[in-house]
Amino acid sequence: MNAEILSVGTELLLGNVANTDARDLSEKLAKIGINVFWHTVVGDNPERLMQCVDIARFRADLIITTGGLGPTCDDLTKEILARSFGLELVFHEDEAEELKAVFAAHGGDHPFTENNLRQMYLPEGCTVFHNNWGTAPGCAFEKDGVHVLMLPGPPGEMNAMFDHCALPYLRSLNGETILSHQLRMFGIGESPMEEKLRDMMEGLRNPTLAPYAKPGECLVRVTAKAETEEECEAMMEPVIREVRERIGDYIYGMDVESMQEMVLALLKEKGVTLSAAESCTGGLLAKRLTDLPGASQVFRGGVTVYTEEAKTILLGIKPKFIAENGVVSAAVAAKMAKRVRKLLGSDLGVGITGWAGPDGEERGLIFVALAWKGESVVRQLHCGSRTPRDRARILAVNNAFDMVRRHLNGLEI
Amino acid sequence: MNAEILSVGTELLLGNVANTDARDLSEKLAKIGINVFWHTVVGDNPERLMQCVDIARFRADLIITTGGLGPTCDDLTKEILARSFGLELVFHEDEAEELKAVFAAHGGDHPFTENNLRQMYLPEGCTVFHNNWGTAPGCAFEKDGVHVLMLPGPPGEMNAMFDHCALPYLRSLNGETILSHQLRMFGIGESPMEEKLRDMMEGLRNPTLAPYAKPGECLVRVTAKAETEEECEAMMEPVIREVRERIGDYIYGMDVESMQEMVLALLKEKGVTLSAAESCTGGLLAKRLTDLPGASQVFRGGVTVYTEEAKTILLGIKPKFIAENGVVSAAVAAKMAKRVRKLLGSDLGVGITGWAGPDGEERGLIFVALAWKGESVVRQLHCGSRTPRDRARILAVNNAFDMVRRHLNGLEI
Repeated sequence: MNAEILSVGTELLLGNVANTDARDLSEKLAKIGINVFWHTVVGDNPERLMQCVDIARFRADLIITTGGLGPTCDDLTKEILARSFGLELVFHEDEAEELKAVFAAHGGDHPFTENNLRQMYLPEGCTVFHNNWGTAPGCAFEKDGVHVLMLPGPPGEMNAMFDHCALPYLRSLNGETILSHQLRMFGIGESPMEEKLRDMMEGLRNPTLAPYAKPGECLVRVTAKAETEEECEAMMEPVIREVRERIGDYIYGMDVESMQEMVLALLKEKGVTLSAAESCTGGLLAKRLTDLPGASQVFRGGVTVYTEEAKTILLGIKPKFIAENGVVSAAVAAKMAKRVRKLLGSDLGVGITGWAGPDGEERGLIFVALAWKGESVVRQLHCGSRTPRDRARILAVNNAFDMVRRHLNGLEI
Repeated sequence: MNAEILSVGTELLLGNVANTDARDLSEKLAKIGINVFWHTVVGDNPERLMQCVDIARFRADLIITTGGLGPTCDDLTKEILARSFGLELVFHEDEAEELKAVFAAHGGDHPFTENNLRQMYLPEGCTVFHNNWGTAPGCAFEKDGVHVLMLPGPPGEMNAMFDHCALPYLRSLNGETILSHQLRMFGIGESPMEEKLRDMMEGLRNPTLAPYAKPGECLVRVTAKAETEEECEAMMEPVIREVRERIGDYIYGMDVESMQEMVLALLKEKGVTLSAAESCTGGLLAKRLTDLPGASQVFRGGVTVYTEEAKTILLGIKPKFIAENGVVSAAVAAKMAKRVRKLLGSDLGVGITGWAGPDGEERGLIFVALAWKGESVVRQLHCGSRTPRDRARILAVNNAFDMVRRHLNGLEI
């Protein structure tokens, strides 16, 4: 199936927000083997929207719209799609009653207004996607060989409705099952990774093996088609084993969302606690760990010691020691890791110091240290002076997470 | 001028990254009064790219492409655009020589390879946009009443080349000058803001006044067209004054990029230092401040005290005090602010404690405190249990920045 994602919303054309819906949908569709060939963004304008729908009908056999399902007169998606496909809109009494009940349960803060009922007109004969995360229902229908799915625009609603409503619908369309697994790696470049796997990427047909590039890391996706999930898994198993053998311990996880998710799970599994002293990354490591619920079980806390003085006050590192070694040095990074570990009584301590920018000869030089009982190890990074500040900071934190992983798994750091 | 942004790259269709280029370009084009009516994303496939170019030519009078200008055989944008418009590609010797010199200066790490020369073939008669931030030059041409601009895909390169090359080119197309200013506000909702300004938004023709929604804050843009910049400024001045009078001190800045940028500038201007103790925001405030170069001049550092124990160890807050008041309380937030201020010897201290999620009755309850010499003030936020974790954390940090601003400007907090 060849898909087009059609996002409707003037706010996207004004540049207020990036089109994360299209990115998220593309990633989810790739996982179930649906090719996304086009993204289109158009504003809340009936003529231009109609033209875009006509183009999409002509070239795609699956159209997924996001946005424009709400209660205001700007919300045109259902009307225009129904008109383009020659379908009537039908009022859904049951959805309306349910929404009224939700409003009633929430009390007087947001009274029910009649314009909310506009959302309950849906194309005749469609499958209704009930929205438990917002007010506007979505839907799906098939006409003239084209499948159309409509989802709301707010990313939280869109993602939840895709997972709970659209995904089962799409899976039911073709009798076959498509499953995929994602292997994520750190510390190996995209080209060396592809070199090691090229024959598999080119030769395999089912399952397939495909590389993906993410900022700062690499991943490959294994995808299998079969009648049942069990068959898919059985077909993928030897491929995954082979990839693991060839790539080795650069692989840090399968089907994990991020390095922080992997580190947090590993710390919990091993019952190990962590703390961090951050200079140039200024709280980014702490922020990424605490983005995830439940971080407090293993993350004991951290200090942002952006200045030399703060390194002295919070960590007790003597000005003389800093002066002798230089504030950006392996010695200071190691000392930061050791001191924060001791201060917060954690099993592991991370210390990061470096020049993230904006200028200067040494820009991009960063030291990342990991300390545990009686020992410490330091990595030296040269990001290069052309690496943007945010990239250098992300890379430093990724290295810290990688060092934690390697230490906990008994691998060489 | 009605514009289409045509982004070329399979990685966008696989969902590896969001299309931030389209967002950034849209925002920049809106500032100079160019309407963006369509975004299209297509992969590195010659037939589909050609079809998308043909559609764009038909409906837009300005096409800006991003991506596909690089040295590999996947990079097709120049070839396809030239073919669609019936133009020959011409080799640019001067660009090639310059690139060879850049490679030579960088030494042996990345030797020059012949495929780099592919990038130097550009449509005949075009204006060349020299790329100081990467290897692939961009370009602009006009044919059959359609203006085409090609920019590279990496966001850093794209933004720099737009500002330095594309913007002057677009400005020179029409004799008139378009200028705009953006007023940003915090603490007022979008609807109340629009109510206060509705007559101006509807009635004004030149300058115009338009609202924009950003996650967690509001802004309005004033845009004027005239022969010179001076005339534009003179036309906008009374409108800006009127908006300021109506919205009052909710406005935190004009033409600033973010609340952290505003706070950092204000701290520098007043010579005031800041430190922060973060619980539920887990380093997000520190991260946002240190995203900006030069933060170390005024940001003394911070502690991430995610656990009760860390609050005791790092800030010396007694377990009894926490038990008596509750860890999420105004008293604990104020104590955190006072203690971190004293600890790091800064003029101001921020303390943030709350339930950011994932579950529980109290989810969304957050206290934000600001302490200065001998005094402190606390704001209590109810984000609501439906607010996602990341949104609640952003809102807490925005409130802290707003409190710093109000304190430094002598406004009621």
